[in-house]
Amino acid sequence: MKKLYVKDALAMEEGKEVVLKGWIHKIYDLGHVNFIKLRDKTGIIQLVASKEELEGLRNEMSVEASGVLSKNEKAPGGIEVQLKEIKILGKAYYDKLPFDINGRKINAALEVQLDHRNMSLRAPRIMAVFKVQEEICECFRAYLRQNNFTEIHTPKILASGTEGGSELFTVNYFDHRAFLAQSPQFYKQMMVGVGFEKVFEVGHAYRAELHNTYRHLNEYVSLDAEMGFIEDETEIMDLEEGFMNYLFKHLKETCKRELEMYNIELPDEVKIPRIPLFEAQEIVYKKYGKRSPKGDLNAEGERLFSQYIKEEYGSDFVYLTKYPASKRPMYTMPDPEVEGGTKSFDLIYRGLEITTGGQRIHDYEMLVENIKKKGFKAEEFDFYTQNFKFGMPPHGGFAIGLERMTMQILGLENIREASLLPRDMKRITP
Amino acid sequence: MKKLYVKDALAMEEGKEVVLKGWIHKIYDLGHVNFIKLRDKTGIIQLVASKEELEGLRNEMSVEASGVLSKNEKAPGGIEVQLKEIKILGKAYYDKLPFDINGRKINAALEVQLDHRNMSLRAPRIMAVFKVQEEICECFRAYLRQNNFTEIHTPKILASGTEGGSELFTVNYFDHRAFLAQSPQFYKQMMVGVGFEKVFEVGHAYRAELHNTYRHLNEYVSLDAEMGFIEDETEIMDLEEGFMNYLFKHLKETCKRELEMYNIELPDEVKIPRIPLFEAQEIVYKKYGKRSPKGDLNAEGERLFSQYIKEEYGSDFVYLTKYPASKRPMYTMPDPEVEGGTKSFDLIYRGLEITTGGQRIHDYEMLVENIKKKGFKAEEFDFYTQNFKFGMPPHGGFAIGLERMTMQILGLENIREASLLPRDMKRITP
Repeated sequence: MKKLYVKDALAMEEGKEVVLKGWIHKIYDLGHVNFIKLRDKTGIIQLVASKEELEGLRNEMSVEASGVLSKNEKAPGGIEVQLKEIKILGKAYYDKLPFDINGRKINAALEVQLDHRNMSLRAPRIMAVFKVQEEICECFRAYLRQNNFTEIHTPKILASGTEGGSELFTVNYFDHRAFLAQSPQFYKQMMVGVGFEKVFEVGHAYRAELHNTYRHLNEYVSLDAEMGFIEDETEIMDLEEGFMNYLFKHLKETCKRELEMYNIELPDEVKIPRIPLFEAQEIVYKKYGKRSPKGDLNAEGERLFSQYIKEEYGSDFVYLTKYPASKRPMYTMPDPEVEGGTKSFDLIYRGLEITTGGQRIHDYEMLVENIKKKGFKAEEFDFYTQNFKFGMPPHGGFAIGLERMTMQILGLENIREASLLPRDMKRITP
Repeated sequence: MKKLYVKDALAMEEGKEVVLKGWIHKIYDLGHVNFIKLRDKTGIIQLVASKEELEGLRNEMSVEASGVLSKNEKAPGGIEVQLKEIKILGKAYYDKLPFDINGRKINAALEVQLDHRNMSLRAPRIMAVFKVQEEICECFRAYLRQNNFTEIHTPKILASGTEGGSELFTVNYFDHRAFLAQSPQFYKQMMVGVGFEKVFEVGHAYRAELHNTYRHLNEYVSLDAEMGFIEDETEIMDLEEGFMNYLFKHLKETCKRELEMYNIELPDEVKIPRIPLFEAQEIVYKKYGKRSPKGDLNAEGERLFSQYIKEEYGSDFVYLTKYPASKRPMYTMPDPEVEGGTKSFDLIYRGLEITTGGQRIHDYEMLVENIKKKGFKAEEFDFYTQNFKFGMPPHGGFAIGLERMTMQILGLENIREASLLPRDMKRITP
């Protein structure tokens, strides 16, 4: 018989016959009265069982339970199921679970939880992270499609390194040495230039970075957008600001339960202050006495500056603009109004960078000059610059790290919590 | 000024002032009268220019054109623009284009077109392929989300080979040798088991296969779905049949122009015959005198059998069912009703396999037994089988190759035409 979702059963009238399928979340063998908490994708419901019906059941087995709904104010959701029959669908083969997932919190270190991802993901609070993540992806695509963007899929196996060539994983590709893509940057620009005009991609990106921090993954999902026929980088910032508003509205509608689990209240409107980097550096120095590295904010600076913006503007977001060319890739459009500056920006959200973006150089000769200025050999970038010989329009774009965005929205402490199966320097399993 | 799309300009009244942005598709310098065909993402429109306005313009430059709409029955779409001003946005830097993309067809071999993807993709007929492809992806996600599936993103860097371990690309991952994922098979099963119940993924898959054919890519986009709490594999076939109907309806609405370019008429209803493989083999032998390899159809057999199904059932699709266990991976659910058979299927579309699917083994002990029966060491699959110790429900799924599906819908001759930037044994550029 077709399964009913727990969420729907909880919303029904008493007296209804139901068939539920899910996992045994917890067994209460109290002698005089016996319960099972049944968990499915949508929630948890209480089943009232006889002593005999509990026999042979264990936590985390998957079962089919049929019975009749009855009211009980003490039951979660105010309704429970008087069990008529329970069948085991998926057996359990363990002596002891690695840790319990049916308590208030999981009593295991993050590393242990990640080692046993087949267990930790069962906890409703952990599964909730990925409901939010799914909706972020969905919003990103829906918002951009509404704005006439085309979805693309570009190769992750490359012949040449991008953006300077460091921090690349190598792949043994038949007789060649190839690389895993750090970003779809070059390809998304190419696709704007061939006539798609506006493109986006949701895909994996790979960084062979040698740091193991709370905010880095070596494989992550990049939400990339690139848009042609722009006037300047402010259009890109407008676009992303529009996305944040679209996203938060959507999350409030679709992830109410999940946001409540994390005590998150999202703002009704996102209006993002735009502040040149050098001003931000000054503020961090004057207000907090912290010096910034040349042409950048460090992690502490981002955090302090976010704090300042929250106090002054009431905003969780801030655009840092006009980064110096020395700190940006060779394709970044210079800003003639700022000595050594560029038309680029970072988006800081709750103290952490979640986006880099800006206008790119679209003229072939200017691009070649800029590559040389950066100290690279222009010939080595032929594969890239040749795309600029055929009428590349003014364009720009941005990229959001999906796991970072998820982490910041939910206030998670470690980016690994925002990946189903994270990959870092020490982890390529499960 | 904000750009108007060509498609929208073609639908407007004469006398309107418009600003268009796009690429110069073709210049007609006829002496007494001068035209430019302007191309953007949505179509082509004719601009009437003066001799002076043509000066300095070249094919494929990107431009901003402003002018007034006027009726002209001879112009494509019945309307043209009397040019007031034309500005170059993106310059051209070439002596000669590698080939023309503004004629009826491109006079260059496929390999040359792929070498110059920054040019060939500009041809409206080629760009149309990727509009259809985008809508296939969109439908896949929309259809499954409507059916309570959750979108997941699983790692493409793995510690262990899947499905037997052959045909894998290796990655140098810090101090380890790692592999690129052939499919998200194991992970999608794991995600069903932890409680997502129904999941899908749109992501890259990698096959280090040593054949260079018209229907193989070494990197492709896999549309994967997996569903828990099923009765048997017929639910998976129903699901995919439902998807095909949803897709074709959607494509007729959103890709009218693109389907017309390829002279494709999609059926109003897809009803897919389901025929056991051994019967198909018999038919191919009796009707066409062709013997099949043991437990399979070869490429010719698939083509002939499709022809038979088209004649007998009027269907472009056929499910080949009950494949023998010897030809299926170790996780395939045996079918007790067929000696040596399994609850698995292929979907053949216009003579080519586009899907493999079926019910999987969900019981831990049965899975371990089956791995041994296949001649593997069960311990080597511990990383996989441990996911089956905690109440894995009955489940199954399928995977569609996005490029194959695109190719078959549009009747393309080579799968490389259905990839923006194909990767094969000989090609990792551009």
